[in-house]
Amino acid sequence: MFSPLIEDLIRALRCLPGVGPKSAQRMAMYLLEKDRDAAGLLARTLELAVDKVGRCSQCRTLTEQEICALCNNSRRDPNSLCVVETPADVLAIEQAGNYHGRYFVLHGHLSPIDGVGPANLGIDLLEQRLANEPLEELIIATNPTVEGEATAQFIAERARARGVSVSRIAHGVPIGGELEYIDGGTLAHAFNSRTSFFPGG
Amino acid sequence: MFSPLIEDLIRALRCLPGVGPKSAQRMAMYLLEKDRDAAGLLARTLELAVDKVGRCSQCRTLTEQEICALCNNSRRDPNSLCVVETPADVLAIEQAGNYHGRYFVLHGHLSPIDGVGPANLGIDLLEQRLANEPLEELIIATNPTVEGEATAQFIAERARARGVSVSRIAHGVPIGGELEYIDGGTLAHAFNSRTSFFPGG
Repeated sequence: MFSPLIEDLIRALRCLPGVGPKSAQRMAMYLLEKDRDAAGLLARTLELAVDKVGRCSQCRTLTEQEICALCNNSRRDPNSLCVVETPADVLAIEQAGNYHGRYFVLHGHLSPIDGVGPANLGIDLLEQRLANEPLEELIIATNPTVEGEATAQFIAERARARGVSVSRIAHGVPIGGELEYIDGGTLAHAFNSRTSFFPGG
Repeated sequence: MFSPLIEDLIRALRCLPGVGPKSAQRMAMYLLEKDRDAAGLLARTLELAVDKVGRCSQCRTLTEQEICALCNNSRRDPNSLCVVETPADVLAIEQAGNYHGRYFVLHGHLSPIDGVGPANLGIDLLEQRLANEPLEELIIATNPTVEGEATAQFIAERARARGVSVSRIAHGVPIGGELEYIDGGTLAHAFNSRTSFFPGG
């Protein structure tokens, strides 16, 4: 119905997550009708990012530099390393604001069925860091899914073998959440992982 | 928090309609982590579209050709012309499938407050077509908003002055809609525009 090039653009926009045929059409029309400058800028920025952005050689997060800003920040605690699945998880933890150590990004989780093994997650690089850095604690913050838990277990054993203390972030009822609306799995986990009210006594 | 180039990409993605900071971040992460080929293709297609797509010299819809496929289609009825606000409106009418005439795209509506006058809407080109083509009917399908109605009125008077019969598409309760959920304005319009059940008698 549209001309071939506009159809191509609508099809290309559908590669974006959460964008179906109607949204893609709306986006294409908007960009071509209302904001060609922004469209041009988006095209150039996207091309540059695809070309330049790689992984930090220390923590594997996405960056166009050799070493990312977080790894380069000498004020971050070198004794603590937090393992996450994605760069977006790093951002979420940074926004929470109470962790001041360093990170390691797996870019996924162990998933033999998809052919994702330890090599894909950079476990060798993680082991090097466990061996060479003055780490006191490895905090595992993979997602609480079956694959995330399996990955956590795998990494925890590697770290224990090297004498590094390992912890897992807590899972349970979210702060501000109401018990009534929490799913059973989370609630069961919250009961199993209950902590003493008066840890001292 | 992200590296400068990734921040630039997130900012650039926010130019898309309906995309806020969280979606833009998710899109950037997805493109860089999961689908760089699609991202590259999107960048190239977008650049090409911004560069090549212009307006049809007859109907002003978006196309990279001199004359769009609809205007070039000799099987379309040359006696009927439908005036719409946007190229997306052309698509919506084509998908409905019962109109077989030609189109004229205004790319907006009269809006003196935004500096949009007849010249911006290509009214001179429309008048040329009214003068030179064997038009029997001009169907006005601008949106039923204040500006759309004013634009319809303006165009209707120009067409009448040239002796072309003018009609306006019907507005009222949508087919399949339930009266209970229809807004008062639409319902009032539907009552005012009621048609005879037995037009003959």
